[in-house]
Amino acid sequence: MGRWEPNAGGRLAKAALELYSERGFEQTTVAEIAKRAGLTERTFFRHYADKREVLFAGSRELQELFAQAVADAPESAPPIDALAVGLDAVSGFFADRREYARKRQDVIMANAELQERELIKLASMSAALADTLRQRGVAEPAASLTAEAGLAVFKVGFERWIMAAEKREMSQLMRESLDELKAVTAGG
Amino acid sequence: MGRWEPNAGGRLAKAALELYSERGFEQTTVAEIAKRAGLTERTFFRHYADKREVLFAGSRELQELFAQAVADAPESAPPIDALAVGLDAVSGFFADRREYARKRQDVIMANAELQERELIKLASMSAALADTLRQRGVAEPAASLTAEAGLAVFKVGFERWIMAAEKREMSQLMRESLDELKAVTAGG
Repeated sequence: MGRWEPNAGGRLAKAALELYSERGFEQTTVAEIAKRAGLTERTFFRHYADKREVLFAGSRELQELFAQAVADAPESAPPIDALAVGLDAVSGFFADRREYARKRQDVIMANAELQERELIKLASMSAALADTLRQRGVAEPAASLTAEAGLAVFKVGFERWIMAAEKREMSQLMRESLDELKAVTAGG
Repeated sequence: MGRWEPNAGGRLAKAALELYSERGFEQTTVAEIAKRAGLTERTFFRHYADKREVLFAGSRELQELFAQAVADAPESAPPIDALAVGLDAVSGFFADRREYARKRQDVIMANAELQERELIKLASMSAALADTLRQRGVAEPAASLTAEAGLAVFKVGFERWIMAAEKREMSQLMRESLDELKAVTAGG
């Protein structure tokens, strides 16, 4: 094992995203990422399976945090309110990461394989939320529909949050998106 | 060009799905599909780019039909009602295809690459619906949220429709899913 490097994972992720933005994802090698971060390839592979995983390392953490917040919502909360608690927790997760999220989104939208990977992660998040809701005693199809609705709100709120001119906090945009979903489904 | 074969595309699709079900998607070759259908490989490639496309040939048609039905809904219909019109049209599209849909789903769920492809197609459908709703004068984020909600209802309704014991029509299951989504977003 090499010597311990403080926050090597974070430095590698930052370097990788810079390079993907500058040169494109396909054109960037692990060697270049390690060099930019001032670390070795060996250190890279201690943190990430491959250069794609750098972009998705946070997805599992996000999913667990989202599902856990829904699980921990007050027992009396209807599913949609439990979901709102989850969206608030997600907003906390992203709070300091707006610039990173913007750059990451640009990289992902430029590459079909990365887009597919992102969709798989979102589908996995929806499945995890549905599972959590069933554990809260929500029946099907309400559990799956609430989970899918939650992903819809998350996706739309997230897309607004990373827009160039957008200054509002993610938590506010998530609440607005959820309110808008309630309005459209109510026929408004 | 070879001689004209009546419904060659349909025969190839049927043969392909049989073979994918029996042997698995990876283990099936285009030569085997053509042979099972009593046609040539050349005829196969006049209809489908590759063996994966056999499974997704209907996706574009479905998307256009869904979006067109939403576009053609009464001008006065709120977005969620226009969406309901689209879901009815989709149900008509699938009416005689339940067994095919069940087998296709089993094949897709057994293969990660096919699952990714399916998610891409669904994302494309959501984007097309949002576009159609904007053309109907629906503002953002309502258009995107209604489209995502529509996909949520479609996915959940579809999954119920293909369940082994399920006998009800897709149109009924879609309406029930939409009603359930309305109930959960209303906090019920």
